[in-house]
Amino acid sequence: MFLFELLYQSKRSKARVGVIHTPHGTIETPHFVPVATNGTMKAVDSVMLDPLQVQLMFCNTYHLMVQPGTDLIEKAGGLHAFMNRSKPVITDSGGFQVFSLLYGGVQNELKSSGQKKTGTMVIGISEEGVKFRSYRNGDYLLLTPESSVAAQKKLGADIIIPFDELPPFHIDQSKLEKSLHRTHRWEKRSLEAHLKDRRQQAMYSVVHGGIDQRLRTLSATLLDSLPFDGHAIGGSLGKNKQQMIDMLSYTVPLLAPEKPRHLLGIGDLASIEPILSLGIDTFDSSYPTKCARHGLLFTFQGSKKAVHKDLTTLFGPIDAGCVCYTCTHYTAAYVQHLFKAHEMIAYTLASIHNIAHMVERVNRYRQAILGGLL
Amino acid sequence: MFLFELLYQSKRSKARVGVIHTPHGTIETPHFVPVATNGTMKAVDSVMLDPLQVQLMFCNTYHLMVQPGTDLIEKAGGLHAFMNRSKPVITDSGGFQVFSLLYGGVQNELKSSGQKKTGTMVIGISEEGVKFRSYRNGDYLLLTPESSVAAQKKLGADIIIPFDELPPFHIDQSKLEKSLHRTHRWEKRSLEAHLKDRRQQAMYSVVHGGIDQRLRTLSATLLDSLPFDGHAIGGSLGKNKQQMIDMLSYTVPLLAPEKPRHLLGIGDLASIEPILSLGIDTFDSSYPTKCARHGLLFTFQGSKKAVHKDLTTLFGPIDAGCVCYTCTHYTAAYVQHLFKAHEMIAYTLASIHNIAHMVERVNRYRQAILGGLL
Repeated sequence: MFLFELLYQSKRSKARVGVIHTPHGTIETPHFVPVATNGTMKAVDSVMLDPLQVQLMFCNTYHLMVQPGTDLIEKAGGLHAFMNRSKPVITDSGGFQVFSLLYGGVQNELKSSGQKKTGTMVIGISEEGVKFRSYRNGDYLLLTPESSVAAQKKLGADIIIPFDELPPFHIDQSKLEKSLHRTHRWEKRSLEAHLKDRRQQAMYSVVHGGIDQRLRTLSATLLDSLPFDGHAIGGSLGKNKQQMIDMLSYTVPLLAPEKPRHLLGIGDLASIEPILSLGIDTFDSSYPTKCARHGLLFTFQGSKKAVHKDLTTLFGPIDAGCVCYTCTHYTAAYVQHLFKAHEMIAYTLASIHNIAHMVERVNRYRQAILGGLL
Repeated sequence: MFLFELLYQSKRSKARVGVIHTPHGTIETPHFVPVATNGTMKAVDSVMLDPLQVQLMFCNTYHLMVQPGTDLIEKAGGLHAFMNRSKPVITDSGGFQVFSLLYGGVQNELKSSGQKKTGTMVIGISEEGVKFRSYRNGDYLLLTPESSVAAQKKLGADIIIPFDELPPFHIDQSKLEKSLHRTHRWEKRSLEAHLKDRRQQAMYSVVHGGIDQRLRTLSATLLDSLPFDGHAIGGSLGKNKQQMIDMLSYTVPLLAPEKPRHLLGIGDLASIEPILSLGIDTFDSSYPTKCARHGLLFTFQGSKKAVHKDLTTLFGPIDAGCVCYTCTHYTAAYVQHLFKAHEMIAYTLASIHNIAHMVERVNRYRQAILGGLL
């Protein structure tokens, strides 16, 4: 069963410390949530991930629907059994990826003009849901609030997300408002479908409204009045960090303190402190592992170390004091060599390090909050 | 120090069982030797490899000279320390790769007309050695018997290989003979350089002569009279398996039984039994890991399983009874999903399985020889 305990509320900021209890164990918040799109971290398997203290992992329903299909995963005993992961998992609704198809990549959809429509894969949006074609085999698929929840029931994640529309950043006010109301209707339908067949899963709402304070207020207030187990903050988060911070500073206080709050899709190093200070409990991002694959290694001595710089004299770990698998077994010089030699195991070792670093970094913030420093 | 113990000689065939003692531990022969070109297995790091019972690993001097350079590896404490591998390692001389540049790919050079010369990277071959350009930065490099041995001293492998010329398969008799004599002179120079500065390393000869019985006889007889610690069988092994078998059946008996015999670059499943029956103790190949990356998984039930076939109902391991990391933690259906989703961790899990399979397969042959079955 799902339960959030708020253990400590900072007096200096809105930062807080808590524990989320789920059927697959606890998540000590604040916590970084790595993304495992296809039911695996990129370049790191579940068993290798296990000692890295990742307490919650984010999988993408849309990708898993398309490959290998939610029926197969259900037959395998659910996502945890399929990927051999015993710890908590959160899945999204599939909406984000479907709308990415419509408006282009995630970057475009959030930050570009939003005019670019790849179009062909999304057939149409109606009150019912979204009709689109599989990028793998061209099959027609209909994603609705009910089918998204049904898919997430088959996956069996501990935390699931209602189906929502992700409007592009550059959308006119009336369209944004229209989209928001439809999203609210979809979220309610999702919640109803979920509550009919709970199966020990929790459902977070997704607060929308772009960077419009009136709409965010409307969304947060409405969704907080419904029996969701927690809230995710999604939709367009603005075109820069300041817009996101502004939005969070007026949105988060509208959410009941007794429910956990998740920020969708943010995980760059510079954002961590401000979002925690604003009362975010968990946040997911593929940024640390994407950095890893590009040879950007996180450290506590100056945040990032690029493997294309000269590390050849570094016969010590990437980050002194880091206790991750990579740092305890290999030198920075060796990891750099693996990158230069185009050995794919470099991606594995770098990803392990960056994930471990993120978890440790957020743990340090947790201690800082408890120590009255944040 | 290096020592080969011949424990058992089959009465049914030339197959034998032994133990090679090296400064980094023992190798129970027969044994499969996976290839770790750049100082790592492809997609599998040293620590993950450790439980797979691989007792000898093959690294390529040429690649390590070019990246990261043998000086750096020496500074790191040698190849074992650099790659964090505590078990025995063998390096080649660099000759094979340099001549691959001259005659095209390995396949071409061994099996094609041998007419194709990529040329530009190899500047010239003389009695002194081979001058070529680095494929990474265009630097001029001279590889000679002495410089190859010096490079291998810096790497510090347990077993090293003298510098040899690899002539193409289609070479006329007089050129092949000329090449063979130069190779013998180069091998003697390599041995002299090695014996001046032994450093607890062993050196195997490389027996040449293509598929010409007279030349193989000449090569095996000459090299066996020199104080090499063992013999590798190299050069062109013929254009099909039968030619290789014919060659081994007249070459191997010329080699003193008290020295270990390594076959260079062979490791397909169908070749294992014949080469062991002909008295080969160790053999290296990148074939099992290359297969793995193409989704060909070895099993004891029908040798190979392709992940593009339907494994979606296989909620058991890839190979029933296999105790490798992959088979004990993941189902065939999951591994197949990772391949279909283009997740690179699929290559890791498949490589681990195929390596474990090869080691186990050869162990079973070892038992079969001891049991009088081979």
